[in-house]
Amino acid sequence: MTKPHLRLVQALVFDVFGTVVDWRGSLLAELRDFGASRGLALDWESFVDAWYWGHRAAMDRVRAAELPWTNDDRLHRMILDQLLEKNALAHLGEDDRSRLNRAWHRLEPWADVLPGLERLRRKYVLGTLSNGSVAVLVNMAKRAKLPWDVVLSAELVRRFKPDPKVYELASALLGLEPAQVLLVAAHRYDLAAASAQGFRTAYVFRPLEYGPGVSPERVSRDEFDLWASDFIELAGLLDA
Amino acid sequence: MTKPHLRLVQALVFDVFGTVVDWRGSLLAELRDFGASRGLALDWESFVDAWYWGHRAAMDRVRAAELPWTNDDRLHRMILDQLLEKNALAHLGEDDRSRLNRAWHRLEPWADVLPGLERLRRKYVLGTLSNGSVAVLVNMAKRAKLPWDVVLSAELVRRFKPDPKVYELASALLGLEPAQVLLVAAHRYDLAAASAQGFRTAYVFRPLEYGPGVSPERVSRDEFDLWASDFIELAGLLDA
Repeated sequence: MTKPHLRLVQALVFDVFGTVVDWRGSLLAELRDFGASRGLALDWESFVDAWYWGHRAAMDRVRAAELPWTNDDRLHRMILDQLLEKNALAHLGEDDRSRLNRAWHRLEPWADVLPGLERLRRKYVLGTLSNGSVAVLVNMAKRAKLPWDVVLSAELVRRFKPDPKVYELASALLGLEPAQVLLVAAHRYDLAAASAQGFRTAYVFRPLEYGPGVSPERVSRDEFDLWASDFIELAGLLDA
Repeated sequence: MTKPHLRLVQALVFDVFGTVVDWRGSLLAELRDFGASRGLALDWESFVDAWYWGHRAAMDRVRAAELPWTNDDRLHRMILDQLLEKNALAHLGEDDRSRLNRAWHRLEPWADVLPGLERLRRKYVLGTLSNGSVAVLVNMAKRAKLPWDVVLSAELVRRFKPDPKVYELASALLGLEPAQVLLVAAHRYDLAAASAQGFRTAYVFRPLEYGPGVSPERVSRDEFDLWASDFIELAGLLDA
């Protein structure tokens, strides 16, 4: 039985990196394939982690206006270029760099995602609400068959989450009140910002997002409107 | 065989009202049902035409900055309210007005649209590029099962087509050059504006858009990159 205050919800918007797709496992598989095909012996786990955290730091610089607005796809590329330099791979040409950066367009969803969304889509409008750029989200969804009704991105307001304008835009474009929109995310900062804008919120636990050795953030069961271990449990909690 | 200069095309973006959906037939059916259920004897064809052309005139006022930015959904409602007044229906309350205005969210596609898009989606990214507001396009697509990969709207730049910024935004958000994007539309003004921005263009002939008695605009076969009588022919022309 859906919680009473969630009965108004008409649309679910999803954080994507970590919540919907396993960015780390997907990038690692691509990089290892690439390395094997070129005979490059590198610590690809460290490379992926440096890429991810480097890009997170670059997003912080955009948020702080130390960098002009730069979309997520171009930030990935900026950090990739730096990492190739550091790892004595500066000889890689444009085709290889572009192919590697496009790995972010080919991330794989967690195993529960497609069956969960298949149930949820019957009852709700489903959209992304991601810091990823529109092209990345569209290409990823097409390849992985993610059934979004709408692709909403921080790029549309040229600010990254948790800027309130990102959430405001989402409810405005959907023609809904904030309380009619529920954000699904695996990260506290994102859910807290959405909640502050009046959105409903569902936390999904993704303990493997940062790899098997890393303790995940712990969010208690009463911190947000819903707590789910995966999208199938989430569908059940939302009567879908 | 696809024309050589169209081989770069990766995404198709579609005008929606008239090109994808039969707004006139769909609205007429809804209004007649509504009238019958209330015992209202009105000339619903004239009503629909006045609604459509009133809304077109209101869009022109927004383009000329005589009205502040107002999305398409709210323009429909503004004209609806005026028409109800004129037709001695001012007694209709908020529920009825809202229900009638939501008819724009429930427009039906022409018969060739779903089979044509089903073929085209295998080869191309498919999106809207409409003056319709995002919520209208999303709700319409979900109901009619239009398989858009992305919903792009003039609302995202707060200007209506044929403003060049609408087309520029579309290619930028898709991460593509203009020549990699093809606009499909049943209207010369829209295709001409897209072409001026470097888009590829396909005209689709929709002779019944404005009703059976109205001569459609005639566009010759060599005016744009492609000329198709429907989306199935279009799929064939694009090798999909």
